[in-house]
Amino acid sequence: MRIAVLAETDANEARVAATPETVKKLKALGADIVIEEGAGEESGILDAEYKAAGADIVAVGKAATKADVVFSVRRPTAAQLKGINDGAAVIAIADPYGNEAELKTIAGTDAVLFAMELMPRITRAQVMDVLSSQANLAGYRAVIDASAEYGRAFPMMMTAAGTIPAARVFVMGVGVAGLQAIATARRLGAIVTATDVRPATKEQVESLGAKFIAVENEEFKQAETSGGYAKEMSTDYKKQQAELVAAHIAKQDVVITTALIPGRAAPVLVTSAMIKSMKPGSVIVDLAVERGGNVEGVKLGKIADVNGVKIVGHANVAGRLAASASALYAKNLLAFVETLIDKEKKALAINWEDELVKATALTRGGAIVHPNFGGKAEKP
Amino acid sequence: MRIAVLAETDANEARVAATPETVKKLKALGADIVIEEGAGEESGILDAEYKAAGADIVAVGKAATKADVVFSVRRPTAAQLKGINDGAAVIAIADPYGNEAELKTIAGTDAVLFAMELMPRITRAQVMDVLSSQANLAGYRAVIDASAEYGRAFPMMMTAAGTIPAARVFVMGVGVAGLQAIATARRLGAIVTATDVRPATKEQVESLGAKFIAVENEEFKQAETSGGYAKEMSTDYKKQQAELVAAHIAKQDVVITTALIPGRAAPVLVTSAMIKSMKPGSVIVDLAVERGGNVEGVKLGKIADVNGVKIVGHANVAGRLAASASALYAKNLLAFVETLIDKEKKALAINWEDELVKATALTRGGAIVHPNFGGKAEKP
Repeated sequence: MRIAVLAETDANEARVAATPETVKKLKALGADIVIEEGAGEESGILDAEYKAAGADIVAVGKAATKADVVFSVRRPTAAQLKGINDGAAVIAIADPYGNEAELKTIAGTDAVLFAMELMPRITRAQVMDVLSSQANLAGYRAVIDASAEYGRAFPMMMTAAGTIPAARVFVMGVGVAGLQAIATARRLGAIVTATDVRPATKEQVESLGAKFIAVENEEFKQAETSGGYAKEMSTDYKKQQAELVAAHIAKQDVVITTALIPGRAAPVLVTSAMIKSMKPGSVIVDLAVERGGNVEGVKLGKIADVNGVKIVGHANVAGRLAASASALYAKNLLAFVETLIDKEKKALAINWEDELVKATALTRGGAIVHPNFGGKAEKP
Repeated sequence: MRIAVLAETDANEARVAATPETVKKLKALGADIVIEEGAGEESGILDAEYKAAGADIVAVGKAATKADVVFSVRRPTAAQLKGINDGAAVIAIADPYGNEAELKTIAGTDAVLFAMELMPRITRAQVMDVLSSQANLAGYRAVIDASAEYGRAFPMMMTAAGTIPAARVFVMGVGVAGLQAIATARRLGAIVTATDVRPATKEQVESLGAKFIAVENEEFKQAETSGGYAKEMSTDYKKQQAELVAAHIAKQDVVITTALIPGRAAPVLVTSAMIKSMKPGSVIVDLAVERGGNVEGVKLGKIADVNGVKIVGHANVAGRLAASASALYAKNLLAFVETLIDKEKKALAINWEDELVKATALTRGGAIVHPNFGGKAEKP
């Protein structure tokens, strides 16, 4: 059984899909590991470290040949998979939405492409949850990026020459990224507030020492009962909430937005009018920029300046913390591939009845099989 | 009495010497304040804010005319002081060492140039101590810069996919900057160690939750008794200490160096051999780079890459936090100028017997008067 690890080709991608630690564990499963030259370089992993862990290093473009399993961060092209064994598993963040044409060309290689980001959010699959592992780091990094762009200190500082006030940080969207952003901004000494459409997040926000900002009327409280998920709120509620948030943003130094909806454009949370209400020198970090952004005027891969307010639109924020992001991503892949391998026969053995496989497999036998992307609901 | 605030001309200088807050207080002293257009822009202060505080905005190059006091961050040129009143006070970080020729041309304007960085470190002058106010912010910013360059998270993170270990941060030199660097790295969750040649710093390091690294033999302990200052240590001690530090650096993820000696080149603390011993992806921030650097291979204003170790040599690190740095610097100047003004007559009245004036005045009556820079020890 041959497991190939590709060098990423996207200029914005510093991560890698295996580490010396996971290579050792894959070897222990009976696999031969081949890694493309320099694949770990931007994550601070030298080829020599992979070798020491038991991997073979091959030239870029040569790893996939005769591979049973291919690991990568982003979805590889069919060309990168040339020579792959029939029925091999290709495991990546496959980004399938709107990319059906690319999925078809990969189907043409006869590989089984798995989309790690479609992993069900069930207990058994937590260890394989790339959305969580990467969002957590993105939330941390968003605060580091904000503090690097902000012209003041985050913590209150009492000095002989006077006191520097603590920064006011507002986190919009309290998922995994938002929670880590709250925790990191609190660590740095900021005064932190947060909002989310899910009332159940209030307690999490407060447990991190931040203040929850929302119109907490009867409608809100009733929404809280429905199992942690928000109901669609009334137009009147939305209007009140928008006014509250607009008034709040005007008093903030740093805003971090994290609202993503899988497979859809990101919702606009911060309007141009809100940006105009902020003080010059304020900073907004938009973690949803790759899905269109939560902030009006955000530019992908750029820092936009609007009336002295910096709008930070870094691409691939988890990848800006490449070493940590690769370490966790590699462990996510390791955990998943273990479920695809027959440990006695030391061979790939995909169990098509497994709900993890059903949820994540995009292609099989030359065709797209996932029902969300044009595949038949029944397996062939 | 006219107080002029110059727009800085150095491309690396984002700070400004007055804020709306200090403008109001200067007005209350009976002064007219003129500020050059855009002077506060990079510190997030708009001309309109200065105006609202009572200042007049004039074109760049026009503020010094008929001024009794000139405020700037860096030493202005004689050209910038054209038209200044005879005997006016020019207050700046004058950087006099090795710049006697520039001091002479300023003396030629008949102004009294004060070097804020020569302020004696006595209780009364703490509020005017620009070295402390700026070093404190530089120490904070050094950690932010390190975390922005480091490819891993600083805090330990326990996630479903595994644990990310805390970063190991080593701070060399425990003055004001070093102490704030320790505090900030601790805030961010790093495991922090620190070293200094002054044994009295051990307690300060430990009070911040960091570990002190030094050869603590009999010689060290006796050095501790001498009023907090280090004695010149023996060659044998130095050798032992160098070995200890070298072994320690090899295990660190981040090193921050802060060792400056006023008027002299910075001592080399981190050698090329030590850098080679560090893991790829490690980060070194050298706060002494403008004085030649504590780190071999550091490049002013650049991030050098040596075997995958990033050596960060940002210029003017306090200025990278311009809004906070300006706020404190402006307060330092305000406190000093209050000692130079006769509050009843609302006029400049320099008391040449004041020890603060004696320590900081570089020029007077057309000549350099400070004994350290070619002036006569006796005042003219």
